[in-house]
Order: sequence, then C-alpha cells, then structure tokens
Amino acid sequence: MNQNDTKVEQFGDCLYSNPAGYDYWTDEKSVVLFQTVFSGQEEAIQTVRNSPIFFEQAGPREKIYFNPPDVTAGIVTCGGLCPGINDVIRALVMELHYRYKVPRILGFPFGYEGMVKKSGHRPVELTPDKVAHIMNFGGSILGSSRGNQSTNDMVDTLCLYGVKMLFCIGGDGTLRGAEAIQDEVKKRKEEIAVIGIPKTIDNDINYVQKTFGFSTAFSKAVEAVNCAHEEAKGAPFGIGLVKLMGRHSGFIAVNAALASKNVNFVLIPESDFDLEGKGAFFETLKDRIQKRGHAVIILAEGAGQKFFEDKGEMDPSGNKKLSDIGLFIKDKISDYFKRENQTINLKYIDPSYIIRSVPATAEDSVFCGFLAQNAVHAAFAGKTGCVVGIWNNVFTVMPITLAIAERKVLKPEKSTLWRSLLASTGQPNSMKAIN
Amino acid sequence: MNQNDTKVEQFGDCLYSNPAGYDYWTDEKSVVLFQTVFSGQEEAIQTVRNSPIFFEQAGPREKIYFNPPDVTAGIVTCGGLCPGINDVIRALVMELHYRYKVPRILGFPFGYEGMVKKSGHRPVELTPDKVAHIMNFGGSILGSSRGNQSTNDMVDTLCLYGVKMLFCIGGDGTLRGAEAIQDEVKKRKEEIAVIGIPKTIDNDINYVQKTFGFSTAFSKAVEAVNCAHEEAKGAPFGIGLVKLMGRHSGFIAVNAALASKNVNFVLIPESDFDLEGKGAFFETLKDRIQKRGHAVIILAEGAGQKFFEDKGEMDPSGNKKLSDIGLFIKDKISDYFKRENQTINLKYIDPSYIIRSVPATAEDSVFCGFLAQNAVHAAFAGKTGCVVGIWNNVFTVMPITLAIAERKVLKPEKSTLWRSLLASTGQPNSMKAIN
Amino acid sequence: MNQNDTKVEQFGDCLYSNPAGYDYWTDEKSVVLFQTVFSGQEEAIQTVRNSPIFFEQAGPREKIYFNPPDVTAGIVTCGGLCPGINDVIRALVMELHYRYKVPRILGFPFGYEGMVKKSGHRPVELTPDKVAHIMNFGGSILGSSRGNQSTNDMVDTLCLYGVKMLFCIGGDGTLRGAEAIQDEVKKRKEEIAVIGIPKTIDNDINYVQKTFGFSTAFSKAVEAVNCAHEEAKGAPFGIGLVKLMGRHSGFIAVNAALASKNVNFVLIPESDFDLEGKGAFFETLKDRIQKRGHAVIILAEGAGQKFFEDKGEMDPSGNKKLSDIGLFIKDKISDYFKRENQTINLKYIDPSYIIRSVPATAEDSVFCGFLAQNAVHAAFAGKTGCVVGIWNNVFTVMPITLAIAERKVLKPEKSTLWRSLLASTGQPNSMKAIN
Amino acid sequence: MNQNDTKVEQFGDCLYSNPAGYDYWTDEKSVVLFQTVFSGQEEAIQTVRNSPIFFEQAGPREKIYFNPPDVTAGIVTCGGLCPGINDVIRALVMELHYRYKVPRILGFPFGYEGMVKKSGHRPVELTPDKVAHIMNFGGSILGSSRGNQSTNDMVDTLCLYGVKMLFCIGGDGTLRGAEAIQDEVKKRKEEIAVIGIPKTIDNDINYVQKTFGFSTAFSKAVEAVNCAHEEAKGAPFGIGLVKLMGRHSGFIAVNAALASKNVNFVLIPESDFDLEGKGAFFETLKDRIQKRGHAVIILAEGAGQKFFEDKGEMDPSGNKKLSDIGLFIKDKISDYFKRENQTINLKYIDPSYIIRSVPATAEDSVFCGFLAQNAVHAAFAGKTGCVVGIWNNVFTVMPITLAIAERKVLKPEKSTLWRSLLASTGQPNSMKAIN
Repeated sequence: MNQNDTKVEQFGDCLYSNPAGYDYWTDEKSVVLFQTVFSGQEEAIQTVRNSPIFFEQAGPREKIYFNPPDVTAGIVTCGGLCPGINDVIRALVMELHYRYKVPRILGFPFGYEGMVKKSGHRPVELTPDKVAHIMNFGGSILGSSRGNQSTNDMVDTLCLYGVKMLFCIGGDGTLRGAEAIQDEVKKRKEEIAVIGIPKTIDNDINYVQKTFGFSTAFSKAVEAVNCAHEEAKGAPFGIGLVKLMGRHSGFIAVNAALASKNVNFVLIPESDFDLEGKGAFFETLKDRIQKRGHAVIILAEGAGQKFFEDKGEMDPSGNKKLSDIGLFIKDKISDYFKRENQTINLKYIDPSYIIRSVPATAEDSVFCGFLAQNAVHAAFAGKTGCVVGIWNNVFTVMPITLAIAERKVLKPEKSTLWRSLLASTGQPNSMKAIN
Repeated sequence: MNQNDTKVEQFGDCLYSNPAGYDYWTDEKSVVLFQTVFSGQEEAIQTVRNSPIFFEQAGPREKIYFNPPDVTAGIVTCGGLCPGINDVIRALVMELHYRYKVPRILGFPFGYEGMVKKSGHRPVELTPDKVAHIMNFGGSILGSSRGNQSTNDMVDTLCLYGVKMLFCIGGDGTLRGAEAIQDEVKKRKEEIAVIGIPKTIDNDINYVQKTFGFSTAFSKAVEAVNCAHEEAKGAPFGIGLVKLMGRHSGFIAVNAALASKNVNFVLIPESDFDLEGKGAFFETLKDRIQKRGHAVIILAEGAGQKFFEDKGEMDPSGNKKLSDIGLFIKDKISDYFKRENQTINLKYIDPSYIIRSVPATAEDSVFCGFLAQNAVHAAFAGKTGCVVGIWNNVFTVMPITLAIAERKVLKPEKSTLWRSLLASTGQPNSMKAIN
Repeated sequence: MNQNDTKVEQFGDCLYSNPAGYDYWTDEKSVVLFQTVFSGQEEAIQTVRNSPIFFEQAGPREKIYFNPPDVTAGIVTCGGLCPGINDVIRALVMELHYRYKVPRILGFPFGYEGMVKKSGHRPVELTPDKVAHIMNFGGSILGSSRGNQSTNDMVDTLCLYGVKMLFCIGGDGTLRGAEAIQDEVKKRKEEIAVIGIPKTIDNDINYVQKTFGFSTAFSKAVEAVNCAHEEAKGAPFGIGLVKLMGRHSGFIAVNAALASKNVNFVLIPESDFDLEGKGAFFETLKDRIQKRGHAVIILAEGAGQKFFEDKGEMDPSGNKKLSDIGLFIKDKISDYFKRENQTINLKYIDPSYIIRSVPATAEDSVFCGFLAQNAVHAAFAGKTGCVVGIWNNVFTVMPITLAIAERKVLKPEKSTLWRSLLASTGQPNSMKAIN
Repeated sequence: MNQNDTKVEQFGDCLYSNPAGYDYWTDEKSVVLFQTVFSGQEEAIQTVRNSPIFFEQAGPREKIYFNPPDVTAGIVTCGGLCPGINDVIRALVMELHYRYKVPRILGFPFGYEGMVKKSGHRPVELTPDKVAHIMNFGGSILGSSRGNQSTNDMVDTLCLYGVKMLFCIGGDGTLRGAEAIQDEVKKRKEEIAVIGIPKTIDNDINYVQKTFGFSTAFSKAVEAVNCAHEEAKGAPFGIGLVKLMGRHSGFIAVNAALASKNVNFVLIPESDFDLEGKGAFFETLKDRIQKRGHAVIILAEGAGQKFFEDKGEMDPSGNKKLSDIGLFIKDKISDYFKRENQTINLKYIDPSYIIRSVPATAEDSVFCGFLAQNAVHAAFAGKTGCVVGIWNNVFTVMPITLAIAERKVLKPEKSTLWRSLLASTGQPNSMKAIN
C-alpha cells in the first residue's frame, strides 16, 4: 500500500451548504496516520517524512456535493447475516431523514437480487417510523441474498428510481459488486455515489480496525464455549469442541477464548498445526486429558483446510467453499483416542446461526451508528467507490479497492492477541509435529 | 394407577425430634388429591368417594427417623446435563448441613461410575463453602456419566462410607438404578434411604407436574428459535429448522414455540404426520413458503421416528437410540423443494448442548431449592425408594416405581397446550396425508 | 367463599358455532376443585361431599354466544406497568383475529382515560401486523394510566364504537372499574362482555395461583439483589439493602431471595418485626455483620408500615399511599450502627421501574398467551363480569367480585414458601422484640 | 504534556531472562505516537519532527529486572466497584503464576485499609484455583474501601511480606496513593515496583483511550434507559429520567444514549445548560412533550452542578462531593410543569449500583486480561510509578503523574461523539437560555 491507494474518488466541488446543523464540521484535509507504532523517535520521523500513509478522516463536511431535496437514497444488504445490520440501516435512515432532510429512502429487498427487475422484488420506502425499533432484532429487515447479479440490470434499477446514493452493506463479494456498479455508473456518466459499509463477522477487512458485529459475535460465542466447558467437566474425560466462524482468520476464536477463559486449545487458519506426531495436536490433547480430565477446544472454521483436497468449489458469494473442519476433527479425535484406548466423552457444538442472527450488543450498536452516519457524510461529500472504516479509533473513508485487496489476518509471530491467547490457554506456541 | 401405587416405603417409626427449627411441620397424614378437574360436582363426589387417589405431601416432619449426628449423606448425579443440577446439589447440602446438622455429606463423582470402587473415583466432601456459588454455573460440579454399574459394588461403597441416605439426581435409567440399589440395600437389611430427584429436561416424568430444568430449557431454546426466524426472514424463501430436545414428548418444542411466537410448524412425537401427500407436512410448508415467503419449523428429536427402521440399539443409559430426524428432514425438505422447483434457503440449528449446559433461570432455581429440601425431609422421615415431585403445585413423595412406570406425554386430542400451539402457529390440526 | 361466589354471569344461550376450528372443546360443565390438600382421605370425602367449591374451567366452547362477524372487541390496559402486558395484548388480537375472525379490534390508549371522550384520545385499530413483535418490548403499546373515570362516559364510548367485548388488563382498581362498567352496561340493557385479566406484579390476586409478570419480576429482581450482594461483600462491613415490590405481600421479595441465595434477611408485610430490642431486626443484623462481615437485606415495600403514622392518603388508583420503608430503614440502620460504634458501608438499591418495564420471560410469555386466549374464549362464551385466572394449573373464569374480595398474602405460620425462605436465609423465625 | 512527561521510571538494567516462554517479545524501544490525526501531510511531518510525543509500548521484555523465584506480588483494589475488577485480579494471578512462575501472590483485603496493620486485616494468598471462576461475579473478591491510609504503614506492610511488586487497581485517589507509596519506597531505597491499573467507570483517565468496565457500564445502563423509555411511553405525557454515572464527563451518558436510541435529552458536565428561559432545557422539554407525548432524559451525575452552592465537602476518596442533580432536576421538572399547567408522569431511575456491580461483558473481559498481563510485564521489566493504559489500540505504560494530571472529558465543540449524540437525540446543540 502507498499513499495513492488511499485516495477516494470524488465527483466534483461541493457547492451546497450542509443542512445537518452541526456546530462542528470535519475538515476536508483531515487525515489519520496509518502507522503509529515505531521503534523509537527516529524511525517515526523517517517514516512520516519519507513514506507517509494517511487515510482520509470521515465526517460531515460544511459544504456538500448533492442537493438534499434532489436525493433518493438506496440501501441494500447482502451476504450472510451479521449482528448490527439493522442498526446500520436505522442510522442511515435517521441521518438521511432528520439531518440531511433526504425526501426518499429506498430499501432493496434480499440483496443485489432485489436490485434486478426480473427478480420481481420491488424496493420498499424506509421511514423513521419503520426503522425506529429494528435494532432490537437480529437479521436484516431488508433480507439478504448471496451471489452476483447483472451489473447492468442493477444500474438500470438505480436510474429508474433516480437513486443518487447507494449504501451497500456487505462483505468481500458485495464490495466487489459495488465496485462493478460504480464502474458501470461512471461509464454511463451518471452521478450515483456508491458507498460500502463493510460487513464481515470475521473481522477480516484490511485496513479496518474492526468491523461491526464482530464484538457481538465473539461475545455470543462465549456462551457456547462456556457450555462446552460445562459439558467437558460434566463427564469423565470430557472434551468440548466448538466450531466458530473465521474463514481466514482466528479473530472470533481467539477473542471468544480470551473472554471465556475456559479454553485449552484454539486452532486457527493462521497457525499451522498437525494432528498426529510428536508435539502435534492430538498428543498435546491426550496429555491434557490425562492430566486434567477434560479439555475445551475452539476451532475456527477455516483452520486445518490443508487436511482436505481443494476441490476449487465456490459458494454463490464467490468465496471458496471450505470443508467442514469441525466434523472432521470430531471424527479424528474419536478415532485417535479409540486407538489410544483412552475413554473420552466428546461433545461437539456448532453455534453458527445462533451467533449470526442475534441483535448487536450495546458496544456494537453504538459503533454501527457511527459507521452509518459517516457513510451518509461521505456520500453527501460527493465521495464514491469507497467504504467507511475505522483506524486508530478515527472513522475513515478509503477506496473499496484497498479494502478488498487482501484480507486482514492475525499474524501469530508478532501478534499481541495471539501472545495473550497462548498465556490464557497454556497451549504450546506451535503444534506442528516434530520430526 | 390406584391408591396403593402411591404408597411410599417407610423404614419405621420416627423417634427423633427434627432439629430443623421450623415453626411449621408438614402433617404426616397430609395428602394431595390426584384428580382436580371434573365434569361437574357429582362426578367429583363419586370419584373422591369411590376411587380416590392421593399423593403424600412432602415436607419436614416433627419427628424424624434418622438421628442427624449419625448421618452421612451421599449425592450422585447421572445422565445428561440439565439446568439446575447444581442448584439441587447446593440446596441438598445447605438443608442437610444448616437445618439437620448432618456432619458429613459426600458427593460421588461422575454418576454411578463414581460409586464403584474399581472405577478409581473417590467421593468428595461437600460443604456449604464448596457449594455456595455453584448455582451460577451450568452442568454438575460432581460430573455425571451414563450407564449401569454393578448394584452390588455401589451398595458396598455406600456401606463402606456409612452412607445413610443417598440422593440420586437423574432420569429414567438413574431411577431404575436407584430402585435396584434400594432392593439390594433391603436384601442386606441395611437402612439406607434412597431418594430420587427426577431429572429430565424433556419434562416427561409421570405424575410429576414439571421437572427441574425444563423451564430453563425451553426459555433458552427460544433464543435459537428466534435466530431461526431471523435467518428465515433474512433470505428469499428462507426456512429456519430447529431441532429441540424431546425424545418422547413435545413439551420443550411446544413451549418454545409458544414463547417465541415466531414459529409456523411444530412436529412432535405425539402427533403423527406424513411428509408427502395431500395435506401432509411438505405440501403445507410449500403453501406457507409461497404465500408468506418464509417459515420456521421446530422438530422435537423424537418426532417422525416412523421414517426410520428400528435397529433396536440402546444408548448407555438404556434409552432407545433415536435416528436423527433433524438431518433427515433437512435433507428431505431440500429434495422436495428441488423437485418442486421452488428456491428455498434452509438454515438448520441444533442447539442441544447450548441448552443443556446453561445455569437455571430464577424460576427454575427456586423450584430446585424446594425439590432438594423436600428430598432431605423425605429421607429424614425414613422414606425410601421414592422420588420427590410436585402435583397441583404441592410437593409430593411417591414410589420410584410409579414415577417410571410410563412416560408423561402431551395428548394432542385433549391438550390445552396443543390447542394453544395450534392457535399460535396456525398449523393444521393434523398433517397426516389425506388419501 | 362458598360455591355460589364462584358462579360467573352469562348473557344467554350459546347459539353460534365456534369458528376457531379446534378439535378439542372445553366442556361447559368442566370444573376445577378448589381444595386439593387434605388431612387424609376421610377429610377429602367429607369436604367434597359437604362443602365443595369449584371454579369453572376456562376454554373454548363448541357453541358461542356472540356472532363473530358482528363483534368489535376493545382492549384497555390500566395501572402501573408489569412485564407481559404486550404479550397479553398480542395474544388477544391473534386469537380474536385468526381464530374467531373478529373484524375489528380497538385499543383504548392510556387506560380508562382513553375511554372517555373528553380526554381527547381515540382508539387505535389493532391488527396482527401491528402487534406481531410487541412482546419483545416492556410496557404497554396502548399506554396506561391510573385513576377513575366516569363510568357513564366509558360506556358511552363502548356504545359509540359498538364494542361487544371489552378486555380490561389491570389490577384491583381496574377490576373495580370493570365491575362498574358491567353494572352500567347491564342497567342500559346492553350486551357487552366485560372480561378482566388481572395484572398485579405483586401476585396478590385472590384465588389466582399466579399472575402474569410476577415470575419475570422476581427473576429480574435477582439481578439487583446479586448486585447488592457484591456491594455488601465489596466493602468492610458492607450492607446491601434492596427494596422490592410487594405492597401487601412478600411474594416477590421471598422468591427473589430464594432464587438469589445471597440474602440474609427478608422483611415482608405479612411477618411483623421490630427494629430495636432483644431479638429484633437490628440486633440480629449486628450479630450477622460482626460474625460474617456483610449482609444482604430485602424489603418488600409494604413491610414495616406500622412504623409510620397512617395519613389516610390514597394514590389515583385508589390504593393507600405507602410510606417509603426503604429510605426509612436505610436511615435507621445508619443511626443504629452509629450509636453502636460499628462501622458499616450501606448501599441502598430501589430497582422498581427497572423491574416493571422489562419484557416478559419465556415462562411468563407462554402464560400470558394462555390467559389472553382464555379471556377471548370466555367473552365469546357469553360470560361477563369475570376474570380469567389459573388454579391447580387449570385456567379458570370467576366473578370479578371474588377476585378482588380480599388480597392473597403469604401466611408465614403455614407457608411452605416462608419455611423455605427461613431455611435459605437463616434468619430467625421471628424478629419481634422479646420483652 | 511533552515527551519528558511520558517517561516511565525504571529500576535498573534487566539481567534475567524472561521465563514466560513467548516467541514474540516487545521491543524496549517500541513507542506509540500520541497524535495521529492531522490537517494534512505537512502538519504531520512538522509535528512528528518538532514536538513528537510518544508513549512507551507495554509488553513482555526478553530480559527482566526481577528474578521471578524471589518475587512476592501484591494486589490491592480500592474505591467504588467497577465491572471487570475480578477479571483483572484473575489475569494478574494467572500471568504471574503460570508465565512468570511467581511463587507467592498476596491479595490485600478491602483496599489500602487492608495494607495497614492496625486495621486487623491480613493478606490472603491468591492461587489459580482461587481465582479460576471469579470473572463470573461482579465486585472484587478482595473487597475494597475508600480513603487514605498512612503511607508509612502501608510500606511497612509491603516490607514485612517482602512484596516486590504491588498492583494497585483503583481510580484517581488510589493512584495518588500509589504515587505516595512509590515515593516512600524510594526514600527507603527499597525496590518495590508500584504499578497502577486505572479503574474509573467514568472512563475519564487522561491519555488512556478507554478504561476497563466502562463498556460494561454503558451497556448495562442501556437496560435502565430502555425501561425509562417504556415508562415514558406507558403513561400520558410520560417522562423517563435516568441518572447515570459521570462525575466530570458524559461518556457513559452519551454512549448509553447512542446504544439505546430511545433518548431525547442528554445532560452532561461538559455542556453547560440552563433550566429556564428561552431555548433552555425546560422549554425544549415542554415542546417535545407537547409534540410527541413523551420524553427520555439522561443525566450524568456531574451535570448541572452550577445549580448548587459549592460546600467544599470531600468524600473519603478525596473527590469533591457532588450534589444530587437527579433528585434536583426531578423536583424542578415537576414544579415547572405544574406552573405550566401541563400534566406529566415523571419516573425517575437511579441504577447506580446495579451497573457498578455486574460482571464484565465479554468485550471488557478480554480487555481486562490484556491490561493485567501488561501490568505484570511492566513490573517485571523493572518499571515503577506507572500505569498501564491503551492508546491508538496499543497497550502502553506511562507515569502515574501523567495519568492523573487532569481528567479526560468530552469536548462538545469538537467531539465526534457529541455530534453523533446530537444526531441521535435531536436535542439542540445548546440549551443555554437566550437572553
């Protein structure tokens, strides 16, 4: 990444006064420094002087690009459910309606599918009354769907309804779709702001400190983990095995373990491990079982994919289909201890939907509000092809391209999170087999 | 059942004064009428005069059979986990220690297994300090196990430790085991009171109005059901399918549906249904999906067992192994709608352990306390071979034999619960295929 | 009470077929025996033969009095908030709409005030859509108010809107108001069924086993009590003092203590106590503080009213205004320990509204559904001037007069609840001063 | 603040190898940049070059100052309760015991009082077993107290028990006490590391991005606020008034409002307001009440202190005693609307202890673990007179002096938090009376 990658596209000069009525506007020049930890003062000076990278700070501008009375706004939610979607929808509607006085806000039902005429769906008008209480429910009041739709058809729909700003709440696939929409909009020389609000329960968006719903997700996961703990202690040589979300990263798994404090092993995609052999997982597990009588294991769903043949299959969202590591490890553990003549009582918990569909915690709910408000500010400032995020606790806007260039992962070899996890679980730094 | 079946075995005359210090003792003659609903006054008089059935009321007696300073009490928890076990243990210990001044209370680890010398387990001494906070945790601090153990060995252990009263917290299998222990004790002419505290999350103990943990279980299940609802609404033609506990009865399934209010179909063991054919489940489901766009289904685990070949297998607790109706129906639904060319988005949730291992609700916690206190009262009153229960909101003691003679089930044809469920879900009174 | 007191008024013969489509109807003759605990069989026979008392069983009748297409139903909620009101409203609407096909359901806003024209309120039409999700919120979507209104004006309103059945959700005052409405209706020779659904968070309605919201209330109160416990343990000689609801009865206080298990003293209206003197409360408390270093006390709001002069003031609902025993005892405790030269750290918690305004628990939510459905059944069966209740776990209808004749209280001298409380807290059977 | 203020005192060279067994050590030179938002690149370069301020990054060092087998560690918790204290204690013990192999860890009971011999308290030995489950409970297992103690006596105690590192969990007063201890230690030429872990539920420690317990506090406060909302809507012209923590700052009040989304007015210490006059609070409130029929108000406890005479009284912790703005405003609102002849129904909620004494949320629990681990790392690195904190999401150590120099407050005129609050509540930017 270099400084140019952080530059957000802008329609043109902002000529209208912002009607939002705030006393405090965010300066257009305001930027957030990317790197903040340095090995001493000299390194800091050199870095900032020679290769500085900044993100644009998000926020309401005193002057705006779109004339609010002319604006129809559109909202679409795509991909799997994630706590907080309704909080985001609500805050978008409230900010658009009460602060910017936008006369019409449309919600497209069931994701990009709902933006395509032939699907038969029609947008619903969103008003403060309709969204007033939706934050109390999980899911998305608009519904969602996975998969690509014709970009042309979607832009036709935007034009048909005169949408001037589209807010796309979704993950990687959704954001790629948003990019495609923006490209088509540009090709047609239309002026429709396309703003992404990154949704990934896995918390794996690059250059975004945390994504909404993640805190709720690991908090809720703790309940399942604690149940696994009670089940593990409740039977002779009990093992509680919990599969949690995390296709490419262990953020949910690790945080759930740190919060529960009852976990002995966490297996994540970023930390390679073997099942059998000296120092490998099963031997370590057996040792624990025999010494302490029980064990709790968390598996991130993306862990251990090396144990499967890659069939190259994709899901409708364009993500690689993962093999089910949970059931695999469950069976392998049973086999192993049978071979080792060690009784175990294995209980397997896969709480997936029970986590994805809950309402957001208070912490996440506040965060969703900020994200949505800043998305509205960005659209009105004439920015497009961008996402709102947070960096160093400051809300930012950055190009969609940058946000989806690669995934954020936990780097065990220099992660304070992973170090804390090792301290909490007591698991070995590595569970690779020693040859 | 007739009146003789309700008679609880008693060691002999009660000669010691109850040290519990209450002002109010339960009269030994106090009984609870079994039937309370009648078709008019005449029927009531006839029934009470001609074929009255009463249960003994539980409670502290002014005179007791065992001399407290001589008593060692034992506690054992068997079978699957259930919310409230720790509440029961705690209340047993508190009542024994503080009220009856029992000098020694032993907990046998991991169920009946822990009562057998060769298993290598040893009992732990339970004190008020050790159990003070255990109600805040799910599971059982003693651990549990399934399966039979040698009755002889178990009674040897009781004799070895001088146990005078054994409290067995467990389900059907456990209570049969308790009966066998009592028989062996009798054969040996020992005087060891054997008191059962029925534990079945399914709420299917006969002549017991409700069992502990059941209220917590369906309350917790509501969370999973509501997630299924959000998932169902969150995708085009979404179906949320939740499998809940209920091997022989639909009590959890029905109550979870009534509490959630988001459920469209509840399938239980007591109400036969077909999958295909006119008026059968799938056709009704398709109709709902096409009219309303989504559906939520609860399956009790014992529902639809007719779709499987009976292999006659048993689990270690001596219960018939059930085939997995959840995964079966999940696949069948997918097949059906594929054949019918109807898109669906099916999400399957099996929250089992997440329900079994949670701490008890306040409602259940209070109930557990009463059960345990009455179990202690029963033991000190010299009763044995009995369980504590509740009938017409009055705590009772009855012979183990009666409690396990048959299972309590919901009778759809005259159940106000089922009628309320039909009103709540709107599902047809029957989903049998019409030929 | 005698058998005549339980007889519910009925408009006339039921000529219409019930459209609710159930397979199972409740027999009109079906009754529930009042007394179920006896001192042996002979007493039971004598009682049932000589002075039997039965309640009518509630439930849908095969034939009904009102013709559903002609019916406009009205709902009104009065008095203080209580968990579950919205559950009741929802279930009324659902049963009326889906089962009985009632074409119009009106909600009167803000209690009886909303039934009086000059107040300026107008009824709102309630539909399944409007009430679908209201059970997720505390409070009452209709709003509530306290105080009497002109009965004439209210009946005028009922006539104006052609209301054929009025469901009054409220406490003592509300039910007295409902009686007045019924009298006026009768005087005018109108046929408007007036059905009460007793609402009292205190659980003090006579001949009703439990009232809705009570279980939620004491469950929620446990949170406050546990906080008091942490505060008490968190400081040297800490005392946590919690005031809970219970104007005339200690049901909430006692159940919260039993569920929390962290409580040392519970003071309720039904058990007289003194503050100072040998064996009185303060001495006992000092003893506890000095021996154990901390104490948790629950006060029911109606406890200790003897310490205040009776000023004869009434609140708008017609209830005697209670003096604030919480602040009184708080100050008295401080004074006492100052005099005794004993440091204490006293924390006072009054969680009132935080308990009254929460959504119902799953347990209560199911219960509310049953109550409301049976209220609808009662109205359609042509009953009037009655309340729905529950006795021996069977839903009943009984005259309003009987329900409000006197209050249900806990009788310490023969209450198993109080006995269990003494066992749980370890407090003395009496804290009257010994002279 | 300048760079010198951030320099942490260090005992001497680190000669021992860190036994913690991590693969990844935090570099001693690693620093975190203070300022990260700039008005463009040039300002950033100038700032970093000319007046850079960095905090030291916390973390385990490869070489440590204390030899673990020689170390006795002490833990003390002071001041009011705050969610997460037990999480911090647990993580201190676990890190000290398992990672650094510290042989003895002492907990001083009831705050600084427990470090003074004449108080009669004695330290308790803390082990992993004793602290394993304490995070499930609110409060502090060590107990707490307010107020100063003789520094001499406290250092005597540390010397008596051979304590080499003291962890002080507490607020402003506690940290001032810790400074005094460190000074005395220095004077005596002892080497006892004094490490503070800032505890303030108000989140008002300077140069610390957030303090533990704060997230739990505002999350829990939302429950009370939502109850206020139901109460406000549940009566004609209902007003729900909630007093929340926040002696000098509105962080809890504002975040609770943002999470609840049901709030119309938030009054905080940092934003001056008048009660009466044009544009002042009461007029604005009346307008809202008359237009919308209800209102919810949050008061931070430190708001509106200008309405009281300053009596100069202090609490035992050395904080200025605040007058009770909650009861004051409650009465003033009643008076005002009486004068204005506008009926209102005012419900006042003061949930204080119900918030302070709850267990930490998952989010906070994870955070507490990090803080405690870094406190241990700091002590072993030979640092003293410092606190652990977090800045730009990186854990830091800084001198106690800096942490308590002044309080962190919300600056309405340039706060994105306050701006978001205005958007959420719709309240005027200012409620000062216009003359």
